[in-house]
Amino acid sequence: MSRKTPELSLIGLTGLPEIRTGDDLAALIVEAADSLGLAFRPGDVLVVTQKVVSKAEGRVVSLRDAAPSPLANSWAALLAKDARLVELILREARRIVRMDRGVLLAETQHGFICANAGIDRSNLPDQECAALLPLDPDGSAKAIRDRILALYRVEVGVLISDTFGRPWRTGLTNVAIGVSGLLPLRDYAKIGDDFGRDLKATIIAVADELAAAAELVMGKTERIPAVLIRGYRYPEGEGRASMLLRPPEEDLFR
Amino acid sequence: MSRKTPELSLIGLTGLPEIRTGDDLAALIVEAADSLGLAFRPGDVLVVTQKVVSKAEGRVVSLRDAAPSPLANSWAALLAKDARLVELILREARRIVRMDRGVLLAETQHGFICANAGIDRSNLPDQECAALLPLDPDGSAKAIRDRILALYRVEVGVLISDTFGRPWRTGLTNVAIGVSGLLPLRDYAKIGDDFGRDLKATIIAVADELAAAAELVMGKTERIPAVLIRGYRYPEGEGRASMLLRPPEEDLFR
Repeated sequence: MSRKTPELSLIGLTGLPEIRTGDDLAALIVEAADSLGLAFRPGDVLVVTQKVVSKAEGRVVSLRDAAPSPLANSWAALLAKDARLVELILREARRIVRMDRGVLLAETQHGFICANAGIDRSNLPDQECAALLPLDPDGSAKAIRDRILALYRVEVGVLISDTFGRPWRTGLTNVAIGVSGLLPLRDYAKIGDDFGRDLKATIIAVADELAAAAELVMGKTERIPAVLIRGYRYPEGEGRASMLLRPPEEDLFR
Repeated sequence: MSRKTPELSLIGLTGLPEIRTGDDLAALIVEAADSLGLAFRPGDVLVVTQKVVSKAEGRVVSLRDAAPSPLANSWAALLAKDARLVELILREARRIVRMDRGVLLAETQHGFICANAGIDRSNLPDQECAALLPLDPDGSAKAIRDRILALYRVEVGVLISDTFGRPWRTGLTNVAIGVSGLLPLRDYAKIGDDFGRDLKATIIAVADELAAAAELVMGKTERIPAVLIRGYRYPEGEGRASMLLRPPEEDLFR
């Protein structure tokens, strides 16, 4: 194959143990990569799923401790959901976007708009628990990036991914909720197309596309909480997940 | 590296000529793959961008032939858009979802909800032209798949991709608008999570994730209209892009 052929590879980091509160997630990821014989290279992107970050950061809470308020009880009846889960959602949400047909779509404290304020109950050893989003996913990404820099002297980009729905399309896709070491958007307005025409409206959410690509390797049940993406020349700069949020004044679906 | 490590690779098919109406796109893609020394393998996924499909199928139209109706003229003034482009959008749309702040979000004849009913003007040699979506993107995908089957005796999955926006997130990502030879959704409800819990709500739009991953290799200006994805075990079956559309009765944002 020609050396000029653009090629991207995605490698699933298997072999991580079940993550518990207080675990040094970055160290465990580095260890898993090591046992696979993978040495991080400059420009690699590491995508880590939110679930293990939340576990390591103690963001898994017991439903038994979430005594539902009267409001949570009443909404739970309307939505046919567990009232303790609704209580947690209300605590995590800063705005309810829609509440209809069993769906509770909320804006989180970070500004993400997603079902159940990002809370979910899958892949937790204790079925009476729920995982909340990390408090600062950009910070979680940066901590992993800093650890790789310290150990390997290599600068990588790190994304924290989560699985969100879309209003008009069936099924969920992974998006980036934490960003460190790269810009999450690529702006083609500065470049133009192949015929010299301005690409005015073309800003690509590459961080979300990287997260989506990583999901293909992670799956939901295969214990692959981190994926290494090699060969992608990402936009350089210090990005934040908030760059991926549409400002309220441009939001036609509040 | 362990042979059990899940790994995915994406290879950009370079070397295709500028596509014109009537070109045999499937043959040109096969030729490009050949010159790169790539032989298709069973289970490969080929992602082809909508723009070259529209070009080959004669779906590039001249704005000079799109005489704006009085409605198109009036909306064009409101939206600060070219009235001939608005005329084309009105012809392609079966429903306007939002029209506000310079945005014209429409449902296409196929049922896709996207800006400008999927019409765009980038990467066209004649700047007075616009590319409409293919009439039957599933059929376009199937034609390419059939050609590869005929030439290589190999079954691959084929997706046609386009670049759509999202209501609450900045930037566009690639999604699948045409599907042949695979199911676009993976349903984990049948599988359960690692702890035996039902993953009730977890249906992943893998076709959209494959399209998004391919965009990372395509870019917008690098003349890579097709990407080969190798190593992904897609859900088997005969899929259609309409499987990715949320039914109206579940749509909270009409």
